[in-house]
Amino acid sequence: MNPKLLLRKEIIELQGYRPEVQRLGIKLDANESPYPFPVKLNDKSLEINRYPDPEAKALKKALSKLLKVEPENILQGNGSDELIYYLISVTGGPVLYPVPTFSMYGIIARVLGEKTLEIPLDRDFDIPLESFLRCINKDRPRIIFLSSPNNPTGNCFSEERILRIVKESNCLVVVDEAYQPYAENGEGFIPYTKRYKNLLVMRTFSKIGLAGIRLGFLVGERHVLAEINKARLPYNVNSLTQSIALEALKNRSFFKSTIKKTLSERKRLFNAMSRIDGVKVFPSRANFILFKVRDGSAVHKGLLKKGVIVKNLSNLIPDCLRVTVGTPEENNAFLKALKEVL
Amino acid sequence: MNPKLLLRKEIIELQGYRPEVQRLGIKLDANESPYPFPVKLNDKSLEINRYPDPEAKALKKALSKLLKVEPENILQGNGSDELIYYLISVTGGPVLYPVPTFSMYGIIARVLGEKTLEIPLDRDFDIPLESFLRCINKDRPRIIFLSSPNNPTGNCFSEERILRIVKESNCLVVVDEAYQPYAENGEGFIPYTKRYKNLLVMRTFSKIGLAGIRLGFLVGERHVLAEINKARLPYNVNSLTQSIALEALKNRSFFKSTIKKTLSERKRLFNAMSRIDGVKVFPSRANFILFKVRDGSAVHKGLLKKGVIVKNLSNLIPDCLRVTVGTPEENNAFLKALKEVL
Repeated sequence: MNPKLLLRKEIIELQGYRPEVQRLGIKLDANESPYPFPVKLNDKSLEINRYPDPEAKALKKALSKLLKVEPENILQGNGSDELIYYLISVTGGPVLYPVPTFSMYGIIARVLGEKTLEIPLDRDFDIPLESFLRCINKDRPRIIFLSSPNNPTGNCFSEERILRIVKESNCLVVVDEAYQPYAENGEGFIPYTKRYKNLLVMRTFSKIGLAGIRLGFLVGERHVLAEINKARLPYNVNSLTQSIALEALKNRSFFKSTIKKTLSERKRLFNAMSRIDGVKVFPSRANFILFKVRDGSAVHKGLLKKGVIVKNLSNLIPDCLRVTVGTPEENNAFLKALKEVL
Repeated sequence: MNPKLLLRKEIIELQGYRPEVQRLGIKLDANESPYPFPVKLNDKSLEINRYPDPEAKALKKALSKLLKVEPENILQGNGSDELIYYLISVTGGPVLYPVPTFSMYGIIARVLGEKTLEIPLDRDFDIPLESFLRCINKDRPRIIFLSSPNNPTGNCFSEERILRIVKESNCLVVVDEAYQPYAENGEGFIPYTKRYKNLLVMRTFSKIGLAGIRLGFLVGERHVLAEINKARLPYNVNSLTQSIALEALKNRSFFKSTIKKTLSERKRLFNAMSRIDGVKVFPSRANFILFKVRDGSAVHKGLLKKGVIVKNLSNLIPDCLRVTVGTPEENNAFLKALKEVL
């Protein structure tokens, strides 16, 4: 695989910059202060006066075991947002994605001055394959983002259609699996990254109880990731985040149990919402549910008045709202408020 | 002040994206997990399942008091590195800076595909004003970076020369004051940001004992910062960092005392090094000292063998090394090793 086809020429020609890190000895090379401000994270003292490990080696090792890939097949970001920034920086535009979808693909493309290509989803919120393939051939996107499960619609795109796009495009295809922990689809698209070198899978810690630490990562072919890594700021993931994420990976039972609770609440919430007159509920494979009412903005405002905050998507999908699956108590409060508002 | 002169047209035309944050109520709008992984930072529990405050309001308020500016005059970054990335994204190139200086200006410019203009410092490691002004007029840089105190030379550039450059250029001028806490120059360049709207001052928490949290910030004119803010990823500074930085700002005596220790050790180290035969020491207003020996790479290697890690700059300034001021014990070990190696 020649990454030259996938990335901007300037990136391929760039010599990567990675700081050398010497840790064993009296460390007088990095202009750090020798006096750490005292920081204890879950009772563990951190050497917060030192720069973070730029390669996040321990974290990537732990992730690689879980995901059954090598550490070289993983690239860490300050949230998925930052990875999207790097990705569009290294490929350039045009940037292709279906709409509605996660808003940051378009926002970051515009910040970087790159053209966007937006194709509306079909009636089932799936990828309209023919229009996509036509656009790929005609407009030559340099990168494609497919959020699956898709935010805000909640469905997974057809696996077959995603793979057709991966096979028939000469550009990077990023399957954004932010909501994969709730998709009940096994390992998602990660196993395919071994077969298709232009395919990258993006994951995040944000949807499983760690949105505050900002950690996202890419999984893909190592030579492609090595090129994207040239754009990465050396200390993009801080010491606190590396430490908490490592601890999280050692406590997988916590996450298994909270994901299970959310899946069971999603089902209960879906059924309860389906029984409310004037509400159309869309099936979800994420930790939120999309629903349609007669007047989206009025219902949004009514819920707010009752102290329940949901996302108003009326500007994207007429009269649609998105509710995140909360705790059983939160969901009950939402259901009660929704019935009262309607 | 018309920021249109300073920034890329596309940025000025861009509508800023900032997530609305509703905090009071049952929060079912942001697809967070309702179950926080338990995180205690200095015995304080954090709602780590929630996204960070995208505006870092509490942090900016505390900083604004300290720096005697308004919160709107501050822009927060995931380390200064990230701010440099945003700055070059929003101005485009060419990017002008003297050399040798902090390496990230050039590295990030190249990642973003922008042209760099590098002008060698004069014999006193100061800015060669005439060459700079000539370059500004001829090559029309879009952004200028001046690291003062400069890394790796350790000196401050002449205030008069910096101000001439600010006045005579039609582009952003960023004075990078990463090492200002050790410069003994009062408030540095921040007061000038009120007078010169194309001047931005960059600071960091990295050199005073908090390199691990990754926090840098810009101070400047609010309308200019509002434009740069359009390029900022909404959750670029995580909850852990915001929390620790706030705590640090409440404990200024810790930082005052460690800075004082470093200043006194810098003086002692400088004097002791000056007395060693074969060592030329350059005066420093930062937390490191530049020095020249007969064979830089050999001395670097010799020190490493004795367990002392310093930075070898021989590729930038012939036979020069840079030693960070450590604790008294670390500095003694360095002095002993240096004498033995020579």
